[in-house]
Amino acid sequence: MNVESYVNALARNIDALRAQTPLVQCLTNQVVMNFTANVLYAVGASPAMCDNPEEAAGFATNVASGVLVNDGTPSSEQMEGMRLATEAAVAAGKPWVLDPVAAGGLRWRTAEVKKMMDANPATILRGNASEILGFLGGVAGRGVEALHSTSDAVDAARELARHYGCVVAVSGAVDMITDGDEVIQLANGSPLLTQVTGVGCALGAVMAAYASLTNPLDAAIAATSHLNIAAENAAAVAKGPGSFAVELLDALAALTGAQAAERVKLA
Amino acid sequence: MNVESYVNALARNIDALRAQTPLVQCLTNQVVMNFTANVLYAVGASPAMCDNPEEAAGFATNVASGVLVNDGTPSSEQMEGMRLATEAAVAAGKPWVLDPVAAGGLRWRTAEVKKMMDANPATILRGNASEILGFLGGVAGRGVEALHSTSDAVDAARELARHYGCVVAVSGAVDMITDGDEVIQLANGSPLLTQVTGVGCALGAVMAAYASLTNPLDAAIAATSHLNIAAENAAAVAKGPGSFAVELLDALAALTGAQAAERVKLA
Amino acid sequence: MNVESYVNALARNIDALRAQTPLVQCLTNQVVMNFTANVLYAVGASPAMCDNPEEAAGFATNVASGVLVNDGTPSSEQMEGMRLATEAAVAAGKPWVLDPVAAGGLRWRTAEVKKMMDANPATILRGNASEILGFLGGVAGRGVEALHSTSDAVDAARELARHYGCVVAVSGAVDMITDGDEVIQLANGSPLLTQVTGVGCALGAVMAAYASLTNPLDAAIAATSHLNIAAENAAAVAKGPGSFAVELLDALAALTGAQAAERVKLA
Repeated sequence: MNVESYVNALARNIDALRAQTPLVQCLTNQVVMNFTANVLYAVGASPAMCDNPEEAAGFATNVASGVLVNDGTPSSEQMEGMRLATEAAVAAGKPWVLDPVAAGGLRWRTAEVKKMMDANPATILRGNASEILGFLGGVAGRGVEALHSTSDAVDAARELARHYGCVVAVSGAVDMITDGDEVIQLANGSPLLTQVTGVGCALGAVMAAYASLTNPLDAAIAATSHLNIAAENAAAVAKGPGSFAVELLDALAALTGAQAAERVKLA
Repeated sequence: MNVESYVNALARNIDALRAQTPLVQCLTNQVVMNFTANVLYAVGASPAMCDNPEEAAGFATNVASGVLVNDGTPSSEQMEGMRLATEAAVAAGKPWVLDPVAAGGLRWRTAEVKKMMDANPATILRGNASEILGFLGGVAGRGVEALHSTSDAVDAARELARHYGCVVAVSGAVDMITDGDEVIQLANGSPLLTQVTGVGCALGAVMAAYASLTNPLDAAIAATSHLNIAAENAAAVAKGPGSFAVELLDALAALTGAQAAERVKLA
Repeated sequence: MNVESYVNALARNIDALRAQTPLVQCLTNQVVMNFTANVLYAVGASPAMCDNPEEAAGFATNVASGVLVNDGTPSSEQMEGMRLATEAAVAAGKPWVLDPVAAGGLRWRTAEVKKMMDANPATILRGNASEILGFLGGVAGRGVEALHSTSDAVDAARELARHYGCVVAVSGAVDMITDGDEVIQLANGSPLLTQVTGVGCALGAVMAAYASLTNPLDAAIAATSHLNIAAENAAAVAKGPGSFAVELLDALAALTGAQAAERVKLA
């Protein structure tokens, strides 16, 4: 693995996103819609939460640069919007990111997003270790009970990446990103990231933004590093989870490609 | 045009809103519900997000001072609530504001809110230049492609204001407000307003608050100026989009009628 | 009443919540989902907004430590999810909290949550004085028009507590909590609490968190005091409603059991 080439791409992509301001269509959960939209603006992209069945496909085809599907608070109407948007995105050659919230633990939603993934594989699948293991459980008939170690998540991620021909990104204290072959580890971040709701959800949206301008592996690296390095800057001045969330948006908007390249812990 | 009388009305209305605390029924999008509610509190009004078909009409008739309809994330159920609330508002003589998000670009929602507007015209129609042009396209069968200059938006706004007998407010670097005859320009604001999601949406809600206590033209001026002058105060101390949103709420709550009158750039 | 034993329990419960991090299933309104989730994290609990009919009962049975039902923006689909979750919670012996937003004033939702309460009584019923009086109106066929004094709310709260065998918590400048027999008054807080949307809604979620680790009376006291004392700390440094909301999250995360016991005004 050529670390330097990944780091150079990171610097380039962070600056390119601000120049291009891609529009991310977010079919996401109600808890994080506002925060996700503000994170997209802060990194230099634009949000559009178009998720109804009447318009979701047309928007993916004609307007969106990339699509995020996050099933955190699904309604039957939104689920149908997701199905239509992902179908249209793939048909139009637009990237889409799946964030299968609570995969494995909640059966209805897991089955629904697995059907979408089987019919029109995502460009990037992202989740925490439990969700990636839970999603694989749906594939292979396994449960998640005994599978929670980091090395097991790496294997599951690689298996899913190969099965779907996508990149899989696993978030945690150390983030892991794989295309089924190469496995990248990213070690930036802050414990405060787990005390603010929706940071992982927003990460999926930022991946969809970066995936509209570069390959899925570099997109997942850029999104993860943009967020995690900004989080370190925010944590340095925050007094608690409330001020951290505010500082994070300021830090996302201030981070440059050069600073990210200097600070990223990539292996 | 008598600039001084508009400015005097502005000062009066900003102070009057805090004294009367009107209740705005918001049928709005999921992205901005929280921010809109907090903006309404900060300017001195109260929010109520009553948008289900079972209760929306009764609430508009019996409880609300004014109604906001914003179709940013419409579901079929909420769309029916909007139809019922606007019908009830007009029947009860309550003002209502239409914010036709993505009008022209997204056909289903544009057609639905146009039906509401045709059946029960809003007191104020507000949007950005593209939305106002897109909405007119729906009226006259035109598209929006070649219509994006400022002067074209003024003509479209005036045409819509005359057609519906309402005030049309177009937001942008310079805001324009017209009743079909007079055209008011307001030149306050900050570029940071475009980096926080939902400021335009919240502006619609604030217009509905002011429209419950004064005429539509003065209401649109008061809402726009209250928000834009507070934004200047917030931008002076903000470090980025996250802290700007927080400072904006503080500044909205602190602005007085006298300060607004002194600072407003009205022509 | 032994004030000292209540205060000792308060100190213990605040520290125990952080140690146990209970998971609260929130079936709540769209306006406050994000803020509620962040408040739960800040006090030391975890949120999960699982409210669809397909999964709500299973989640309450198998995963949640406690359940919150808040009918602030009900859809027909979410209302069915609420019915199923409360039934499952009671069957599984999990505590649930009802926050009947706008009870009495809005008939559809009041009737719906009253049916849930009659079928599977909540552990804690919480609201402002008007909502508690409105909910009782539904029980006894009375309106709320002439019933808004504090002493009348105490009587209504006691009557409801006895009728349902639950604890009733009435929020206001002075908060009152009763199990139908004992009446506790808590006098902490800040006027800024009424200028930020969703603080009362978040309080319900925090009550569900505390109710998963102690009795309903001590749970309501701990939740109310945790929030109100943190609000005093936040108000001491806030410049307005925007910064107050941010400081409140920081202060919730920083409050210790010992500090709460020293500061609580309980009678």
